Amino acid sequence: MATGGDSEFERIRRMTRSIKCFSDQLLTGIGDDCAVVACAPHTDWLLTADLLIEGVHFDRKWFSLQQIGSKAVRVNVSDIAAMGGVPEFALVSLAIPPDVSVPSLEALYGGIREAATAFRVTIAGGDLSRTADLLVLDVMILGRTERGRAILRSGAQVGERIFVSGTLGEASLGLRVAREQRCGPDAESAVARQRCPEPRVDLGRALSQGRLAAAMIDLSDGLSSDLAHICEASGVGAKIRLQDLPMSDSCRRLAATLGVEPAAAALHGGEDYELLFTVRPDAVAALGGSGFPFTVTEIGEILPAAAGMVVEHSDGRCEGLQTLGYDHFR
Amino acid sequence: MATGGDSEFERIRRMTRSIKCFSDQLLTGIGDDCAVVACAPHTDWLLTADLLIEGVHFDRKWFSLQQIGSKAVRVNVSDIAAMGGVPEFALVSLAIPPDVSVPSLEALYGGIREAATAFRVTIAGGDLSRTADLLVLDVMILGRTERGRAILRSGAQVGERIFVSGTLGEASLGLRVAREQRCGPDAESAVARQRCPEPRVDLGRALSQGRLAAAMIDLSDGLSSDLAHICEASGVGAKIRLQDLPMSDSCRRLAATLGVEPAAAALHGGEDYELLFTVRPDAVAALGGSGFPFTVTEIGEILPAAAGMVVEHSDGRCEGLQTLGYDHFR
Repeated sequence: MATGGDSEFERIRRMTRSIKCFSDQLLTGIGDDCAVVACAPHTDWLLTADLLIEGVHFDRKWFSLQQIGSKAVRVNVSDIAAMGGVPEFALVSLAIPPDVSVPSLEALYGGIREAATAFRVTIAGGDLSRTADLLVLDVMILGRTERGRAILRSGAQVGERIFVSGTLGEASLGLRVAREQRCGPDAESAVARQRCPEPRVDLGRALSQGRLAAAMIDLSDGLSSDLAHICEASGVGAKIRLQDLPMSDSCRRLAATLGVEPAAAALHGGEDYELLFTVRPDAVAALGGSGFPFTVTEIGEILPAAAGMVVEHSDGRCEGLQTLGYDHFR
Repeated sequence: MATGGDSEFERIRRMTRSIKCFSDQLLTGIGDDCAVVACAPHTDWLLTADLLIEGVHFDRKWFSLQQIGSKAVRVNVSDIAAMGGVPEFALVSLAIPPDVSVPSLEALYGGIREAATAFRVTIAGGDLSRTADLLVLDVMILGRTERGRAILRSGAQVGERIFVSGTLGEASLGLRVAREQRCGPDAESAVARQRCPEPRVDLGRALSQGRLAAAMIDLSDGLSSDLAHICEASGVGAKIRLQDLPMSDSCRRLAATLGVEPAAAALHGGEDYELLFTVRPDAVAALGGSGFPFTVTEIGEILPAAAGMVVEHSDGRCEGLQTLGYDHFR
């Protein structure tokens, strides 16, 4: 779908990639969840950063400062998980508007500390300044994998099966019900999912250490957009079976209440922070049984590039999959 | 000088430092120019980040986007220089307001590339999004030193001599003349100094490799503030001899034109990005001669903590040195 926004984004992306490399230690640069840098003889380091700006990436009306701090760390940890890595160190840069008091700032730091502790991330430094009005956070995380084991977006091959962890769609519905201040257990479950994502570090490690995944990404923009990133980086197409998309009962009920097509929430709703990965057919069996204690669901398969991205309905009918997930430049 | 602003800043600082460490690889955490992380057997890695927000840290009225991009990289490279390190990789996160067109963004990236190329820094990744109105940049740089050779703020001891590289005061006058749109060679020289700082990477490397400096910091907030950071981290006091502060003739003339006391510009003007470092008396001789091709000036000495920070006037009279440099929380 070539819109004006897309072509602008393409120009910007080309610009960011026309950068010289001065180091033979850089194994993977711009364009994956993390950069990968060869470090010690048996270790690669993973680098990722997310810049979060009030009004663009979060809203203090729907999130407490504690929740904002925690989520800023968690979404970066998710990028490390998406490479199969272990998060180690963080730099946290904050710019604080005048209406954030010292006690509020303590709540923000409390959230940062909570998430850092949950994932054993050491805050190694950062930067602190004032702003005129908007709260700005930039979190950079440094993680590690065993040498050569980072799972890239570019590793998918035709015939591989597509898997996703956990369930989909609830986080995006959570944002909507938070804005509409809806109550009830289904709404509260969705809001919690939106506010406090659970990065799948242990699953990412298992997939990396078992050499089980060929390509991987975390679901931040939405399944359709993030699958497109894998397809583009790998030069492949993909088919997703709609009836296999994992959704919780609570999420399906909430979608019905809100008049949202459940499949649309699962396909295009962002911020689930589950892992989307591809698996060679001969490795699929390793994802079942008691030796693999993670909830993952097979939702489709990798096709040749010429097939594009398609969805298969329950009646077998296929149609093109549009990428309607979040895009900052649309 | 205990003001309300200082005590608020102290509370915030305590908060940022009450962070758990989960790694025995972290050699130096929050509170220095960079964090230091043990990496390979003979290498330590240096991590630093600076969050730059339009209206707080720069103004598009006085800086072109090319200059803003270049400076964002240069000030981070300066933090690596201040540890005696070599910059290697950068993550660049940008949030772009709607009035920055794609060609303008190309100028911003052009500046980022110019500085990255000048210091052989590889842009390894980052983040890109839109904002409502303000341009926001966060640059993180990863550098390296030989194991255990990072020069910290905390290494100063009583009796050491205090040195500074280059000349002082011009960058802060440059900001003023840019705002006032003054012309002439002295004004233009000062504006250039403000717009395009020159990180002292080679000097920092020589000081680290020769084990010549005991403590070091780069001058971003201003000599009085940055010296205070060394004194506090090292638990010492210091005396600065006013008549020894190095200033260019051009800067002295410009200060006279502007009605600014030259010593005040040198002591409190920020953004010179020179290196301030302490040297054991027996190592001072190594800083002279043709084997040390850098311009450095001895400006004072380290005193016991009880002496505080003092300035000595040309008539031998001493008085307390107030920290009037830039503080985001005053």
